Amino acid sequence: MITTDVLIIGAGPCGLFTVFEAGLLKLRCHLIDALPQPGGQLTEIYPKKPIYDIPGYPTVLAGDLVRNLMEQIAPFRPTFTLGERAERIEEVGPRRFRVTTHRGTVVEAPVICIAGGLGSFEPRKPAIEGLAQFEERGIEYMVRNPEQFRDRRVVLAGGGDSALDWTIYLADVAAEVTLVHRRRDFRGAPDSVEKVHELAETGRIRLLLDTEVVGVQGNGHLRELTLQHREHGAFTQATDYLIPLFGLTPQLGPIGSWGLGIHKNAIEVNTFDYSTNVPGIYAVGDINTYPGKLKLILCGFHEATLAMQSAYQYIHPDKKLSLKYTTVNGIEAFA
Amino acid sequence: MITTDVLIIGAGPCGLFTVFEAGLLKLRCHLIDALPQPGGQLTEIYPKKPIYDIPGYPTVLAGDLVRNLMEQIAPFRPTFTLGERAERIEEVGPRRFRVTTHRGTVVEAPVICIAGGLGSFEPRKPAIEGLAQFEERGIEYMVRNPEQFRDRRVVLAGGGDSALDWTIYLADVAAEVTLVHRRRDFRGAPDSVEKVHELAETGRIRLLLDTEVVGVQGNGHLRELTLQHREHGAFTQATDYLIPLFGLTPQLGPIGSWGLGIHKNAIEVNTFDYSTNVPGIYAVGDINTYPGKLKLILCGFHEATLAMQSAYQYIHPDKKLSLKYTTVNGIEAFA
Ligand SMILES: Cc1cc2nc3c(=O)[nH]c(=O)nc-3n(C[C@H](O)[C@H](O)[C@H](O)COP(=O)(O)OP(=O)(O)OC[C@H]3O[C@@H](n4cnc5c(N)ncnc54)[C@H](O)[C@@H]3O)c2cc1C
Ligand SMILES: Cc1cc2nc3c(=O)[nH]c(=O)nc-3n(C[C@H](O)[C@H](O)[C@H](O)COP(=O)(O)OP(=O)(O)OC[C@H]3O[C@@H](n4cnc5c(N)ncnc54)[C@H](O)[C@@H]3O)c2cc1C
Repeated sequence: MITTDVLIIGAGPCGLFTVFEAGLLKLRCHLIDALPQPGGQLTEIYPKKPIYDIPGYPTVLAGDLVRNLMEQIAPFRPTFTLGERAERIEEVGPRRFRVTTHRGTVVEAPVICIAGGLGSFEPRKPAIEGLAQFEERGIEYMVRNPEQFRDRRVVLAGGGDSALDWTIYLADVAAEVTLVHRRRDFRGAPDSVEKVHELAETGRIRLLLDTEVVGVQGNGHLRELTLQHREHGAFTQATDYLIPLFGLTPQLGPIGSWGLGIHKNAIEVNTFDYSTNVPGIYAVGDINTYPGKLKLILCGFHEATLAMQSAYQYIHPDKKLSLKYTTVNGIEAFA
Repeated sequence: MITTDVLIIGAGPCGLFTVFEAGLLKLRCHLIDALPQPGGQLTEIYPKKPIYDIPGYPTVLAGDLVRNLMEQIAPFRPTFTLGERAERIEEVGPRRFRVTTHRGTVVEAPVICIAGGLGSFEPRKPAIEGLAQFEERGIEYMVRNPEQFRDRRVVLAGGGDSALDWTIYLADVAAEVTLVHRRRDFRGAPDSVEKVHELAETGRIRLLLDTEVVGVQGNGHLRELTLQHREHGAFTQATDYLIPLFGLTPQLGPIGSWGLGIHKNAIEVNTFDYSTNVPGIYAVGDINTYPGKLKLILCGFHEATLAMQSAYQYIHPDKKLSLKYTTVNGIEAFA
């Protein structure tokens, strides 16, 4: 079991900056995110696109903003549980919440800050009969730890950047890599497309275009796929793993069932401290709502700041908190 | 008379960022500041100190943050009245305010955003009898336009960076420069101290240490100063200008008399849109107060954003506003 001062659900930009504001108050944080990497929408949807309305940045690539935020919070040594969805929240004592993920990880903390954005990023699953029985038994919808595939046979499916990038990466790791794509053209970066074709031509991977996965077979663990070529018909291929990479979409998911006030798929908070109707639970960033709410990154930064001031008072009701400028004290004084 | 969409009083970081958020909504801005340069506290008090809690910046010098904000708002072509204090606000028609500065500049706009920080930066004045009669008649407390001093005789007084920097600068502009400082040692940057001594040794300026200005004489315009050396006693010096540079301190000043709700030297606002009790007047940054308020730069950025959304609706009650991401539209689409 992991224990911490503030458990943050969602490692998007607002969850990340929450670590900083908590850190200034000497509160330690643990973050849970369904994605295998931090950054939320910025990393998953538009890492290479510029943002123009981060104050002080005439322009910044979304991926760079996430990297800068990770650097900014590093002095406070946050810990992460990635690739897992926070599923259940229980109150297990006074000022004590327990959160359990869909893979069974348990975290306890006096304060929870939900920075869940538009919801938990969940994979789009292909419509193949019997798929569910092999999930985590040969079928993986995201690559959490590439070492899992070392010296195994892997089939990837998809036509976007994730499918291309992981094909290139795993070519050096797995015993055998096949990329299956239902069209001839890829949607990904031209560089990556070229690299994948090159790997196919030199025999380092197998590239099956105009082809779809239509069946999965095995016995407790995935063993074989049925593939269907647009013209040549169906055939089978033995494999240890299938990684369908058809993108991730955010789903409000379990957040809706935690007993919090919900309005239009968002958690109701006040604007004094961005707390919810449950004392000790805050909500910041895209996931919250209040009169005037704008789903902008810079707003989440402000919300996180006020929320952590309040969290400090909630955890230490007897201590007096006075605002200290970082400029005057530096960061080392806080870390 | 200047007319604009949003008149911003105060060109500190929050006033500057207001220009950006207004600009995204195609509202043009004019800024008034008592200081001769933008940046508020950051430029006036700690330009070379690092700030650690600007989201996305592990560290940034205050002066650099101001420069970046100026670059970020440049596409929206804000205009400035610097070195003037906004003195009076009148409502001259429906959705029409008129603001007059202490030097008589008049600006009219349907919306006012007060980003006045801790108040208008006002010079600390030395206690010399008869000083007031020569203000703007030979006595200047800040350098608004150095050309004013070309080929004239100038006496500067003070021992900090401003006194040193302007002495060095004016050595190339004025006919004659004297720096008067009541101690032997300066408080400014060692580089500048060295440079000033060098100018004195090569006869380019006159340096009077352990000396104070104790009297001012003239006839309608300043003509002569009485100086007092700690040991050698009093003497006179003819001059066209005296520039006492003993620092600036913020004073709430006229803001207190504009009919706005005031609580502990700050303007009361709500948190829906950071508007005051007068429709069309908003207050953002250090100058405002509401339950949970923190006097932090990042909070002012959020406040400015919500305030400008509301200002747009106030100016265009019939138009529907939908949030557009800068990433998707770029800046050119807005500018
Ligand atoms: C194309 C595009 C362009 C944009 N451009 C701009 C722009 O220019 N400026 C701007 O300010 N904003 C922009 N946005 C919006 C901006 O990305 C969001 O405001 C921002 O991502 C919100 O951050 P967040 O931390 O609240 O949530 P998110 O970034 O959505 O992160 C939330 C995280 O929480 C995780 N999560 C949710 N529920 C759970 C759970 N139960 N268990 C585990 N993890 C969970 C999700 O997996 C996700 O990673 C843009 C968005 C898009 C899609
Ligand atoms: C040493 C120091 C360190 C700090 N460190 C940090 C930090 O690490 N992080 C942080 O977030 N904050 C920090 N702060 C606070 C930060 O500087 C303020 O929150 C910020 O400056 C507020 O910005 P603003 O735009 O609201 O107002 P200001 O920067 O105060 O600017 C207001 C401007 O309005 C002008 N003005 C006021 N009234 C009038 C008028 N009637 N007419 C014309 N002009 C007028 C003033 O002259 C001034 O230039 C620090 C402050 C100090 C002094």
